[in-house]
Amino acid sequence: MSSLEALKDRLAPVVDLWRIMRVLSWDQQTMMPAAGAGHRAEQMGTVQLLAHRLFVDDETGRLLEQATRETEGQDPDSDDVRLVAVVRRDYDKARRVPAELRAEMARAAAGARPVWVKAKADSDFAAFLPALERNVELRFRYIECFDDVDEPYDILLDDFEPQTSTAEVRETFEELKTHLVPLIADLRRDDVDDSFLGGDFPPAQQEALDKSVVELFGMRPDTWRLDPTVHPFASGAGVDDIRITTNYDPATMKSLFSTMHEYGHGLYNHQLPRELGRLPTGAPCSLGIHESQSRLWENMVGRSMPFWRFFYPRVQEAFPNLGEIDLDRFFAAINKVQPSLIRIKADEVTYGMHVILRFELEQDIVNRRVALRDLPEAWNAKMKEYLGLDVPDDAHGVLQDTHWAGGMIGYFPTYLLGTVMSVQIWEQATNDVADLEEQIERGQFGALREWLREHVHRQARKYSPQETLRRATGSAIDAKPYLAYLESKYRAGIAV
Amino acid sequence: MSSLEALKDRLAPVVDLWRIMRVLSWDQQTMMPAAGAGHRAEQMGTVQLLAHRLFVDDETGRLLEQATRETEGQDPDSDDVRLVAVVRRDYDKARRVPAELRAEMARAAAGARPVWVKAKADSDFAAFLPALERNVELRFRYIECFDDVDEPYDILLDDFEPQTSTAEVRETFEELKTHLVPLIADLRRDDVDDSFLGGDFPPAQQEALDKSVVELFGMRPDTWRLDPTVHPFASGAGVDDIRITTNYDPATMKSLFSTMHEYGHGLYNHQLPRELGRLPTGAPCSLGIHESQSRLWENMVGRSMPFWRFFYPRVQEAFPNLGEIDLDRFFAAINKVQPSLIRIKADEVTYGMHVILRFELEQDIVNRRVALRDLPEAWNAKMKEYLGLDVPDDAHGVLQDTHWAGGMIGYFPTYLLGTVMSVQIWEQATNDVADLEEQIERGQFGALREWLREHVHRQARKYSPQETLRRATGSAIDAKPYLAYLESKYRAGIAV
Repeated sequence: MSSLEALKDRLAPVVDLWRIMRVLSWDQQTMMPAAGAGHRAEQMGTVQLLAHRLFVDDETGRLLEQATRETEGQDPDSDDVRLVAVVRRDYDKARRVPAELRAEMARAAAGARPVWVKAKADSDFAAFLPALERNVELRFRYIECFDDVDEPYDILLDDFEPQTSTAEVRETFEELKTHLVPLIADLRRDDVDDSFLGGDFPPAQQEALDKSVVELFGMRPDTWRLDPTVHPFASGAGVDDIRITTNYDPATMKSLFSTMHEYGHGLYNHQLPRELGRLPTGAPCSLGIHESQSRLWENMVGRSMPFWRFFYPRVQEAFPNLGEIDLDRFFAAINKVQPSLIRIKADEVTYGMHVILRFELEQDIVNRRVALRDLPEAWNAKMKEYLGLDVPDDAHGVLQDTHWAGGMIGYFPTYLLGTVMSVQIWEQATNDVADLEEQIERGQFGALREWLREHVHRQARKYSPQETLRRATGSAIDAKPYLAYLESKYRAGIAV
Repeated sequence: MSSLEALKDRLAPVVDLWRIMRVLSWDQQTMMPAAGAGHRAEQMGTVQLLAHRLFVDDETGRLLEQATRETEGQDPDSDDVRLVAVVRRDYDKARRVPAELRAEMARAAAGARPVWVKAKADSDFAAFLPALERNVELRFRYIECFDDVDEPYDILLDDFEPQTSTAEVRETFEELKTHLVPLIADLRRDDVDDSFLGGDFPPAQQEALDKSVVELFGMRPDTWRLDPTVHPFASGAGVDDIRITTNYDPATMKSLFSTMHEYGHGLYNHQLPRELGRLPTGAPCSLGIHESQSRLWENMVGRSMPFWRFFYPRVQEAFPNLGEIDLDRFFAAINKVQPSLIRIKADEVTYGMHVILRFELEQDIVNRRVALRDLPEAWNAKMKEYLGLDVPDDAHGVLQDTHWAGGMIGYFPTYLLGTVMSVQIWEQATNDVADLEEQIERGQFGALREWLREHVHRQARKYSPQETLRRATGSAIDAKPYLAYLESKYRAGIAV
């Protein structure tokens, strides 16, 4: 057996353990009796430790060296050459971080979550501060494991969006910010009536409707599940075991949009190439590319007029309270632009500023330009500056997201990177599939799925996010198509 | 740190991996999209291999030797002394079996299951024969890993009922057989009307009723789940994460009995001692002891008159089709004695002969007294001899159970051992808790739960099954109480 084959054999159980963690996490969030959390923390810790040990073992390094030699001179785009390159990068990163620091980061994050849940419920930032300080301190220690970087935030960002520098993100976000602030002032439509989106939306009908939309998109019950949960997410344990979740709020129909969002994540996981199944290259590319897929289905498809021309009668059938509301009014309401306090409820136009605010604060934290105890003040000042809003309490401000409680600093920018890329990818798809919008208006999604498989999903994790985007669209990340899309859709398109 | 503590630290992740296998298996049988089976097989194989490797490592042996010296002279019943003894036994067994043989046994079993499913559906034993031959051949190789045993079946039995010899089981079963065959002839009641147990039993009502009965017994939703599945089972990932399943057949109400059965398994898992949580001694004792708990709740409680005096009105409320049937008729019907072809549908009196038949055939297989191709004939001859029945086809005969397809030879006897022990344990409980039957008639189960915790569950896996039984009841396994129970309940007690 070649060293390359031996390397693959060595990596397969590591991939299995990653997938097992996803099943255990899905189970915890959807099925596990609440009191089981203590057992589950032990189980997750064990799987994580074993996966880490298997991967960072000297033997992995030895096989990697030999496999590098064995693949020298082969096609640089071949699966094997890319595997060796990707694993080399992962291995060098993983070897730098002591297992004890990794375990401590995981424990601190697990411990901080319930503290954050309570602090958010009480809107009490001071109660959360010590846990946050601990998480941030451990990130400083993590950063110290690496050298030779331009700025420390690069290290954290790389765990979520690999091979992407803070400087590159900053450039994109600066351009966005320059345009978004005046655009929001122009495009905000506080007078659009969306009152009918609140009311009586029985969860059973929402569930039936949400299932029908993802089945329409292409979800098949022998390979997918859709379950209720508190915070929607997408997970899975392989291309044939895809699990998405949503949340049914009986007072709104917003589960439909979060379900379409998670469908996009699920489809990416489902259409990853089988032949890379148990290899590290067979995983999704990055959180940004992942988000480009969810935002594409949620926004480019799910908030578009062609889709609603097809789908709105089904929604009216499910919810008689919308019977009197015509399509134009409904469409204007689901696309209402209005600055608001909560990121996950933001419309397409204002969404970006929520992410930019967090990205800026995270850099201030990592560069020690803001004391953690002053975060609420810094948050509120930016919210006033960017969206013109006064934050009434920290639950609606700095405490709203779970990421920092989970130690995830460097994650937020991927939401906006993905949103920007979703427009670039969508434009390429509409170029390549000439009648794509007409297909959607007829409720046909097969060509879109196949285009995404061929141009995005099948690359899996063989390349960097930017290279993946370039291969799909011919371009590097670019804020302009996104800004043009917002201009065109919201300035001209939405009737009030 | 002492070697004993180091040993415990080394064993905890092994226990975690065992529990993870149970979660993954539960998920596969209740939640997983069907097409995920391929991924799941890889994941299970990886967890099994890693658990095995961690456990059989030389380091475990070294710590075990040192821990043995450290605990010398301590109380022989202490948790630590028992831990060392139990792990020593497990370790010596595990070290004898090559990892490759273990993996091959698992693969062959996994491969045989779908073959069996199809063969059973087609009632085609010949189609199953090659898979069965492979499983049996691997058991012979497994047996060869051990020496110094009285008879080869001992080796297989020990994996399900440790420290219990074939000779001991044979003695108990011979006594049972001598009495059961004439007892069945005496007690059979073919004329009891149980036609009303078939009919229209909507699954939603069954589910509500089943949930109400296990909640009455003491199941709490923050630590337990009850889900539908094809073949009911009990599982879980720790005392605070208990999962039982049942099957809702819309034409009968039998899910209620299987739910009470699985509740007994679940309660055992739930009441294992927390202080032994992540140690091999913190697991259930054996399949026989486990079955004693399920049979106790299913039969001693769930087929008793005191229970039904309390519970029958609720059943009548749930199923109006029973409105005209009085308690005595209902009670006679659910306790109708009549020889039948299928083990899992057998009544209390005839059940034992189904197990004895399998135990005898398994010994014939292991001692090469029967060729596998002749198994159907041997099966049918015993069915005629013991229960007077002609087997119409192999689906209703030798192909009915999944155990042999899964390579589990030596498992069946634990069903009857558990049933026999359930009566011994029940009698001790009724001796110790003077008004137990009155409590049950009032719908109170707390004292029974606590008695079981104190006398059975808290011993966990510290002792052999027979020692566990002796500590609970003062006696070794004994067929007489079981036979006397059948005599007394069925000769005198059941009105027609």
